[in-house]
Amino acid sequence: MTDRINKQIHLVSRPEGEASRSNFKLVEAPLGEPAEGQVLVRNRFLSLDPYMRGRMNDAKSYAKPQPLGEVMGGGTVGEVVASRHSNYQPGDSVVGMGGWQQYAIVDASQPGALRKADTSRIPLSAYLGAVGMPGVTAWYGLVKICEPKAGQTIVVSAASGAVGSVVGQLAKARGCRAVGLAGGAEKCAYVIGELGFDACVDYKAHADAKSLYAALKEATPDGVDGCFENVGGPILDATLARMNAFGRIALCGMISGYDGQPIPLQQPQLILQSRLRVEGFIVSEHMEVWPEALKELGTLVATGKLKYRETIAEGIEAAPEAFLGLLKGRNFGKQLVRLD
Amino acid sequence: MTDRINKQIHLVSRPEGEASRSNFKLVEAPLGEPAEGQVLVRNRFLSLDPYMRGRMNDAKSYAKPQPLGEVMGGGTVGEVVASRHSNYQPGDSVVGMGGWQQYAIVDASQPGALRKADTSRIPLSAYLGAVGMPGVTAWYGLVKICEPKAGQTIVVSAASGAVGSVVGQLAKARGCRAVGLAGGAEKCAYVIGELGFDACVDYKAHADAKSLYAALKEATPDGVDGCFENVGGPILDATLARMNAFGRIALCGMISGYDGQPIPLQQPQLILQSRLRVEGFIVSEHMEVWPEALKELGTLVATGKLKYRETIAEGIEAAPEAFLGLLKGRNFGKQLVRLD
Repeated sequence: MTDRINKQIHLVSRPEGEASRSNFKLVEAPLGEPAEGQVLVRNRFLSLDPYMRGRMNDAKSYAKPQPLGEVMGGGTVGEVVASRHSNYQPGDSVVGMGGWQQYAIVDASQPGALRKADTSRIPLSAYLGAVGMPGVTAWYGLVKICEPKAGQTIVVSAASGAVGSVVGQLAKARGCRAVGLAGGAEKCAYVIGELGFDACVDYKAHADAKSLYAALKEATPDGVDGCFENVGGPILDATLARMNAFGRIALCGMISGYDGQPIPLQQPQLILQSRLRVEGFIVSEHMEVWPEALKELGTLVATGKLKYRETIAEGIEAAPEAFLGLLKGRNFGKQLVRLD
Repeated sequence: MTDRINKQIHLVSRPEGEASRSNFKLVEAPLGEPAEGQVLVRNRFLSLDPYMRGRMNDAKSYAKPQPLGEVMGGGTVGEVVASRHSNYQPGDSVVGMGGWQQYAIVDASQPGALRKADTSRIPLSAYLGAVGMPGVTAWYGLVKICEPKAGQTIVVSAASGAVGSVVGQLAKARGCRAVGLAGGAEKCAYVIGELGFDACVDYKAHADAKSLYAALKEATPDGVDGCFENVGGPILDATLARMNAFGRIALCGMISGYDGQPIPLQQPQLILQSRLRVEGFIVSEHMEVWPEALKELGTLVATGKLKYRETIAEGIEAAPEAFLGLLKGRNFGKQLVRLD
């Protein structure tokens, strides 16, 4: 096993403005052996997520900066190859933070470092999407911040994505009107036709703020009670202007501004005028909800009631390009990298 | 009594941009008689408040637009002159919404239309300030939204004003570091020397955002846990950049943008990055807290522990000019008009 090669992607420089291929480097490292308490995992899927863009910067943010010259961090699912921890056996399917690499050696005794995946009811890759961090993110922001009530209108941006698609379906299950925003006619058709949203606005079809607002107004005739925001910028401006009194905005992501200067919020006075509550969150700080959320999400996926789509890039070498595509919205549903 | 004249200020036009004297008109109306269940009140003090600027517009907001050609609405204190309601006797001191006029005829049976003022412990005018709507506004935003804990830092803008001065003193009473923002060296000296804040930043002394931020940083070495915002614009931008993780922002007013175009929030992504909660509120929608708040505020004023200052304009004719001055921050403390 010591002769085995572990292909990895390292971060080697920080972006100035847009992230680019040159920020990443493919490295072939020798693979070590697990020590006592450690587990060697063969990663099968790597999750690519917008939050990774923030970690590429060296700025104060909720996520610690990704160190230069090290393996990019990231969520993975895979199988145990060798174990020196009594809870894990070779062949076990596991979820963890294996990073952008083919193999990971994990300290299995560290709380939350690994959890087992039951692949008899739920596909392995779903543990990185609807039954993983994105799913719980959707659940937390919707249930705990947007506080949806039957008959209310919930708007979610990046509606075809890993998080947004779950938000809308959970909102529908709670008797709400679910309205999405997505980039392109194909994504919108999927959001309505497959995911069951009531409406979806193609933000790419609107050149200016006025036109986008008009389209959103048509899709939300009774205004908006809860907004789950993944994108920010003009999309958030439009939604803010549609909020009903006492509405709730869960700020989950602002991907439109990740690659450059912050994008101002045009009408912050609406938060006061409409007596809104705006709350930013990251799901890893709310571990107390994970069991309840994963129970609902797992059951919905296992019974086919929660639908999702994946875009899968092939091979660790493809990870940087797939990640840059994610930042541009080129993925459709959950962006994964297959590491077979 | 029917021959008596009631001097009133009417709103006769809506501002385009800045409010001006020409939006108001002095009217001498004949004074009627109270009908059954009504009370005739001689207004002694009129309260001038920033929210009135919003009501001058014909736009959707939390407050209904002030109708044209009618008496401007506003809080008043005064004495009962004649009563056809068994709860009120001539000579009673009362608080109500008597409007910009010398006399008001009030339906005393309407809930909340009038309440009696105990002037043995508390000066009559204080019922329009620290022991009235501005005081309860401060109490609600601080206690219910900022949720101050001993040792935390609370920042409040318009710190020498009717609301801000109470926010800081209540924060101090709860063991917090209280930091104000105010316009001018004299106001800042008062905020620290008289009101007992730990620090006060004179925003007029800083020409650009960088300089204002640096001054606020010096005044808040441990960051900011709670922000009570009365002003908005560059002041809110600076405070937002100083917020600690999980900080709370109570949006009470954004007076800097009332007279023209909305002022964008420059870095909304900080709400996400610092996992903040931003909440807009108006105190009249939280009547459930008034008894508890007024009890604390009344006791503090009666015992001399809660200090406040008033700027008093003389006579109903002076109300428009005093109001325009309030919008420019020319008042010092609570802006009143004496109607004797």
